[in-house]
Amino acid sequence: MDIKVPRGTQDILPSETAKWQVVEELIRETCRVYHYKEIRTPIFEHTELFTRSVGDTTDIVQKEMYTFQDRGNRSLTLRPEGTASAVRAYVEHKMFGYPDQPVKLYYMGPMFRYERQQAGRYRQFVQLGIEAIGSADPAIDAEVISLAMALYQKAGLKKLKLVINSLGDTESRVAHKEALVNHFEPHIEAFCSDCQNRLQKNPLRILDCKVDRNNPLMETAPSLTDYLNEESAAYFEQVKEYLNILNVPYEVDANLVRGLDYYNHTAFEIMSVAEGFGAITTLAGGGRYNGLVEELGGPASPGIGFAMSIERLLLAIEAENNTWEDLATLDVYVIAMGQAAKKKAVELTYSLRQNNITAEMDYLDRKMKSQMKSADRLKAKFVLLVGDDELEKQSAMLKDLSTGEQQLVPFNSLLEQLQNNLTTQLEEEKND
Amino acid sequence: MDIKVPRGTQDILPSETAKWQVVEELIRETCRVYHYKEIRTPIFEHTELFTRSVGDTTDIVQKEMYTFQDRGNRSLTLRPEGTASAVRAYVEHKMFGYPDQPVKLYYMGPMFRYERQQAGRYRQFVQLGIEAIGSADPAIDAEVISLAMALYQKAGLKKLKLVINSLGDTESRVAHKEALVNHFEPHIEAFCSDCQNRLQKNPLRILDCKVDRNNPLMETAPSLTDYLNEESAAYFEQVKEYLNILNVPYEVDANLVRGLDYYNHTAFEIMSVAEGFGAITTLAGGGRYNGLVEELGGPASPGIGFAMSIERLLLAIEAENNTWEDLATLDVYVIAMGQAAKKKAVELTYSLRQNNITAEMDYLDRKMKSQMKSADRLKAKFVLLVGDDELEKQSAMLKDLSTGEQQLVPFNSLLEQLQNNLTTQLEEEKND
Repeated sequence: MDIKVPRGTQDILPSETAKWQVVEELIRETCRVYHYKEIRTPIFEHTELFTRSVGDTTDIVQKEMYTFQDRGNRSLTLRPEGTASAVRAYVEHKMFGYPDQPVKLYYMGPMFRYERQQAGRYRQFVQLGIEAIGSADPAIDAEVISLAMALYQKAGLKKLKLVINSLGDTESRVAHKEALVNHFEPHIEAFCSDCQNRLQKNPLRILDCKVDRNNPLMETAPSLTDYLNEESAAYFEQVKEYLNILNVPYEVDANLVRGLDYYNHTAFEIMSVAEGFGAITTLAGGGRYNGLVEELGGPASPGIGFAMSIERLLLAIEAENNTWEDLATLDVYVIAMGQAAKKKAVELTYSLRQNNITAEMDYLDRKMKSQMKSADRLKAKFVLLVGDDELEKQSAMLKDLSTGEQQLVPFNSLLEQLQNNLTTQLEEEKND
Repeated sequence: MDIKVPRGTQDILPSETAKWQVVEELIRETCRVYHYKEIRTPIFEHTELFTRSVGDTTDIVQKEMYTFQDRGNRSLTLRPEGTASAVRAYVEHKMFGYPDQPVKLYYMGPMFRYERQQAGRYRQFVQLGIEAIGSADPAIDAEVISLAMALYQKAGLKKLKLVINSLGDTESRVAHKEALVNHFEPHIEAFCSDCQNRLQKNPLRILDCKVDRNNPLMETAPSLTDYLNEESAAYFEQVKEYLNILNVPYEVDANLVRGLDYYNHTAFEIMSVAEGFGAITTLAGGGRYNGLVEELGGPASPGIGFAMSIERLLLAIEAENNTWEDLATLDVYVIAMGQAAKKKAVELTYSLRQNNITAEMDYLDRKMKSQMKSADRLKAKFVLLVGDDELEKQSAMLKDLSTGEQQLVPFNSLLEQLQNNLTTQLEEEKND
């Protein structure tokens, strides 16, 4: 039996990775101008990190983690999200002592959740995460949100919706939790067993439930907005004011709660509203987590961040029918006829590459016609032909595949000639 | 108790990731000119993939794999190397049917081996892997080797040693294996228990043993070179001839065997010979694996590739005392004095970023002096100052931190002025 890719995961093939590279470069560039620096944490962490931060009543921790023992009997878990790891690193490396706060971090890499298989959902997926830790200034909430929006706009997306909410501080949340328990408790037997468990532990999670989402009690549930204390309400007002200053349009949705335990104050999600994007429209989500650094052993330090799925970003680009620039990159295909010419072709191909020209040649000893077909298929800009005649003249035939023009060029001026021709082609393309 | 990074793994902090980004960009660029395309396979695979390809008598499979059951009771393993996954993908996606052969792939990402902890060895480490599958032309062996060398040279390394060997084809290896059994069998009780097991299963592995490496029988063991049949010897001669054509210097080492089962014909390693590089000098290793595609369920297709450690590449760069270009990137630090100015600062910072200028501001409501210190520490090229006076004049004070010069610039010409100044600075740096 053949061995296949594990269920729920995928290979990304060369025709697709070219697009990933474009998008990732755009992300690195945008993070650079926003002055966020990359951090890389391991693929797995001690399991306790996630039970303590993401929360042990969440779906992620209860149902979706890849947890295993290593050969030293440690319980490790493939990271299901990135904020916990970033905050763990912030504490472990004492970044709270860095002279410049907030510490602004980003990371990009695979995350793992054992979810039921459905279209567009993978058990290994790639997230960009952004974290600004060490400031409780509403202006940084606006910065983080505007960075997410800027990324999508640079990627050419226009059909976006930004939804924000405030989850309030601890006092506000306790008051709201009490109201939720009072609201659901008399009718809790009509809810699923998960929700019945959630009632005392974490009634906010009930609002997230996929099973009971059509229960009429959902719509009449007390809204967090009505339980925000004065300080929380004032903070939310300022976030909105800064978003207005930046001209970033948003909607307030009092039902936005997010599926992780560590959030408070600002929460937000960005959706694609492109037609035909499919059922899952959320592209990115995030929020403020002022208690998390302390929870993980550091000094009280406020933080805010978001995570976005790169897979969904690519889907959204395609849903808006944006086109990719030509991703083919081959400058020269070197064609050899005969064994002596082959050796020269190997040498020429190498010297072009040493000078940063993308070059390819035949490694199957095929006939000239087949080699020419390869050059066409690979969209080579130029072909270099070497046979016995050319060898004798210490020259190669240089053919421009866009015009069909060809000329005999001595070996010792080939490099210069090709560099000139490639520069000219590039300039002509720019002027088109 | 605080939660730490798992034993044997590491966080790569922002001061280091900047170097990783430089090296990775150089790698992507070099792969591009050699016309290799990126492939991304999952972090874990079915365990069977590695037992069948890497070989079930190897140290990797026997002692070093992170193997676990997922929630669907599949045995999965965090990939300990990349060739098996690339070949699995080649078969699964029927790349043997692609019109252009060989299929030339690269991948860059984390690999996992549960090894004893020692300096410079991590249980999660990053490898670049290169695979050319579908050609048995000795010229492609030379291409693959020259690509590895070109990468190191572009990274500024000069103190390199390339060692090559031939492991021969199956016939040659069977003959050599017989000779090895005859050589070791009479004295096998003097060897470790691992070697005793290896004797019949895989006597070549004995030559790799770290425990018995000083046993005198090691040096007198029959050399593969003496057992190469005519075809294998001729193939090896051609690989060397192509390396000569490319002016890539090498040494032949008949003892080079590599620690994986799937290699045949060409094997190679690249070492750093920089002083003070430490005990582990191997930077990259690879070879030909003509039977692997068939072993994993595809049609017989020859392949060759290598893997290099990015961690070791970075260590080698430092061992040769190469310096990094200045990795600080901040163009402008925006300083606000007062609440009204702060709002303007938020707006200015955002508009600079929208125009690709790296900008930072204060999110802690600190005094001007502290903000100025941040600008210095972060090596900002310019400072923009906004206070009540400036607001009234609808202007900001623009200060060049390299010269100390400052001038009042109206808000509506700030962007243009800054773009000009940044371009001028860049040109002056180039001319230096």
